[in-house]
Amino acid sequence: MPNVAENLNVPPPNHVLVLDGQGWIGLVDQMGTETSIVNAARVSFGKIRQVMDQRDAALVKYLIANHHTSPLEHVMFTFLVHCPLFVRSQWHRHRTWSYNEISRRYTNEDITFYLPGALREQAESDRQASKVAEHINQDECRSLIAKHHAASLRLFERLLAEGVCREQARGVLPQNMMTTFWATVDLNNLIKFIELRDSPHAQSEIREYGQAIKKLITPIVPHVAEVLNWS
Amino acid sequence: MPNVAENLNVPPPNHVLVLDGQGWIGLVDQMGTETSIVNAARVSFGKIRQVMDQRDAALVKYLIANHHTSPLEHVMFTFLVHCPLFVRSQWHRHRTWSYNEISRRYTNEDITFYLPGALREQAESDRQASKVAEHINQDECRSLIAKHHAASLRLFERLLAEGVCREQARGVLPQNMMTTFWATVDLNNLIKFIELRDSPHAQSEIREYGQAIKKLITPIVPHVAEVLNWS
Amino acid sequence: MPNVAENLNVPPPNHVLVLDGQGWIGLVDQMGTETSIVNAARVSFGKIRQVMDQRDAALVKYLIANHHTSPLEHVMFTFLVHCPLFVRSQWHRHRTWSYNEISRRYTNEDITFYLPGALREQAESDRQASKVAEHINQDECRSLIAKHHAASLRLFERLLAEGVCREQARGVLPQNMMTTFWATVDLNNLIKFIELRDSPHAQSEIREYGQAIKKLITPIVPHVAEVLNWS
Amino acid sequence: MPNVAENLNVPPPNHVLVLDGQGWIGLVDQMGTETSIVNAARVSFGKIRQVMDQRDAALVKYLIANHHTSPLEHVMFTFLVHCPLFVRSQWHRHRTWSYNEISRRYTNEDITFYLPGALREQAESDRQASKVAEHINQDECRSLIAKHHAASLRLFERLLAEGVCREQARGVLPQNMMTTFWATVDLNNLIKFIELRDSPHAQSEIREYGQAIKKLITPIVPHVAEVLNWS
Repeated sequence: MPNVAENLNVPPPNHVLVLDGQGWIGLVDQMGTETSIVNAARVSFGKIRQVMDQRDAALVKYLIANHHTSPLEHVMFTFLVHCPLFVRSQWHRHRTWSYNEISRRYTNEDITFYLPGALREQAESDRQASKVAEHINQDECRSLIAKHHAASLRLFERLLAEGVCREQARGVLPQNMMTTFWATVDLNNLIKFIELRDSPHAQSEIREYGQAIKKLITPIVPHVAEVLNWS
Repeated sequence: MPNVAENLNVPPPNHVLVLDGQGWIGLVDQMGTETSIVNAARVSFGKIRQVMDQRDAALVKYLIANHHTSPLEHVMFTFLVHCPLFVRSQWHRHRTWSYNEISRRYTNEDITFYLPGALREQAESDRQASKVAEHINQDECRSLIAKHHAASLRLFERLLAEGVCREQARGVLPQNMMTTFWATVDLNNLIKFIELRDSPHAQSEIREYGQAIKKLITPIVPHVAEVLNWS
Repeated sequence: MPNVAENLNVPPPNHVLVLDGQGWIGLVDQMGTETSIVNAARVSFGKIRQVMDQRDAALVKYLIANHHTSPLEHVMFTFLVHCPLFVRSQWHRHRTWSYNEISRRYTNEDITFYLPGALREQAESDRQASKVAEHINQDECRSLIAKHHAASLRLFERLLAEGVCREQARGVLPQNMMTTFWATVDLNNLIKFIELRDSPHAQSEIREYGQAIKKLITPIVPHVAEVLNWS
Repeated sequence: MPNVAENLNVPPPNHVLVLDGQGWIGLVDQMGTETSIVNAARVSFGKIRQVMDQRDAALVKYLIANHHTSPLEHVMFTFLVHCPLFVRSQWHRHRTWSYNEISRRYTNEDITFYLPGALREQAESDRQASKVAEHINQDECRSLIAKHHAASLRLFERLLAEGVCREQARGVLPQNMMTTFWATVDLNNLIKFIELRDSPHAQSEIREYGQAIKKLITPIVPHVAEVLNWS
């Protein structure tokens, strides 16, 4: 696993910042290219090729357009993700990824919290969405949240000082707490993730991660990005 | 889905209480029996039977002892689970289950929190475990936690009143918040869950759910329970 | 597992014949209803219902139309399938099912072969399809195939008589050999199977099984069938 | 996908021959190392390292011995496999792999068959195994099998000449036919495959592939190989 920092709050070199710089996602490892996709697809016909030409680019587009997605599963990515707990819970609902996450049962170091840069209003018509706020007192609300984060951390540390074990004490920490996890997935399932999470129905915060993933992998699978209109 | 209550804080009829009555797990639907297991196993040999006899009981034991577990996958269970968020996060790491969970993006009703009945100390030698507390001031610590829960809920409601959307406001709610989810799994993967979660390495809270599952399904798969020493 | 026959070449009571009566698929067990789907979906909003009304039917349609398919995973089916080996191989590419199959390593009884009722021509333009034959000498070709099946079985039995083990001797048996397997799947993944296998791109033989599944489960999930235009 | 041949009957450079040279498995791509495993495991404690030391080797052993296998899922392998159909069917029962296989619906070129180098006898006591043959007339039996392969191919080609489509004509080809497929899997599930398929209960033919995989990946994960006694 090349080039990752010693501290889990520091992103790896190839990363994209999100959430006003409070979160990030880095690409730390990768296997396969679009030539892998083409070869896995052409095996049906008993063919293999060494380099891609224009017909292969057309094949990649055909496969995606027609949901013949199994050849995409030979391309893999490993990411390191730094995000709030509530984003992590949405993410881990995707069961085709492999995950390993920091655990507050085992360490109480480097605890930070996500403070929304801009608070959004509840949408009236659509229960799934929020909208840009016009009437919210941003300064006051953000200040209340920041104070709550600090009070939560003080209580957590107080409980530890009283002798309470980490696995119980962490229960007082809010869902805005930041976490870090390894995440490995194949290209087929990654595309499904992006469709669901970089969507107007998804929460704005996780959507930023979906968009960041597109930026990170477009150089590796440019024809896939083109057919899916990622640019 | 038979016999479930209108309110998601009320357990279905066939349930086991855990966490001093603050949590519960109910069995709401089920498919297959030990005869299903035996028939799925005997298909290799071209055989089917209508009822189980003693040789079939021996076969169930042989299958489990020798990790021939695919026949167990034709027996399914659907549970309704009421647990703290931190237990939910451990549970959802098991990727062979199907889940549907209450979302605080869509409702702000019936919010409650888990208040540990007894706080445990950090174990010295084993970083994964906690132990019975001798030196903790239980009353004071539990009172601090309860006050923090109330303060968290007040801030959540204050933010909603200020116009902040639920999906952002919920970030201040602590991981002790209770949640409710549907969970469907086959017997093979359920046994793996129990092995990992009803274990001395697991956190005491999720372990109670693992033990409750044993009680709920032992009447349905008595020979499986016997070979795994669940009694 | 209710009501299955002693011999694996005999279908269970609730079945559909396919391949001119040479193959069949039976529904032998089932869990959940459309009410299960609705309840699993409404848990997001903290709601549960006992019976379905018109709004629930609309919800089922909304879920499928918008690919919110996780609530469909709490409805399960177990089938018993009797089909040629080449259909089995296409079927087992679907990795979300649970399978247990008769094995010719363990039994050499009740061996039969699929003899196509009508042979089809190779399509010119589309490499994936075949078409109704006009120029094939059906009687002669079918007779050649039938004789080959008989010769294959004779050689298999000769090899067994010579002392060769079943697991090696079976290698001479053709892919038209019939097999029988248990297959359990949830409704979400069953719909994906039907979309891929009851399709003009799929081989005609497996397509008959896809259509038979629709007939077997439409009475159980009528609104799902309606929104997917299965009638 | 580096260095694969144009013809699917030719192995890639990094391969192991099996089945008397009639079959082979090649390693064509790979992601992650034992350092990836260690880092994914240490994230629980908030730690990352650049290179492995002796404590890390001990950690790899601890993880495997205690079934903490999720960190192994960030190491991936892509193989190209050339094997008989009956081995392919056993292999594809492993549902955590990604597969793409040559299809006789789409091509009728380069068809070959597996002719066992030595025929084995049926074991008396254990229905799963075969044993070294003492009483089999090897020459005669192998000659009968070889003739049957040739007759099967002639019939296949005759049917194509009569206008029958490939997808139906292939039904006469025996399970000894060789096939080729791409196969991608993570290290955790690969170890499970090896435990089941390089086992005395497994058929000798697939066991050779399990042993070949060990040879191919031992240089990449030497401490894993050591703790599992692969040498």
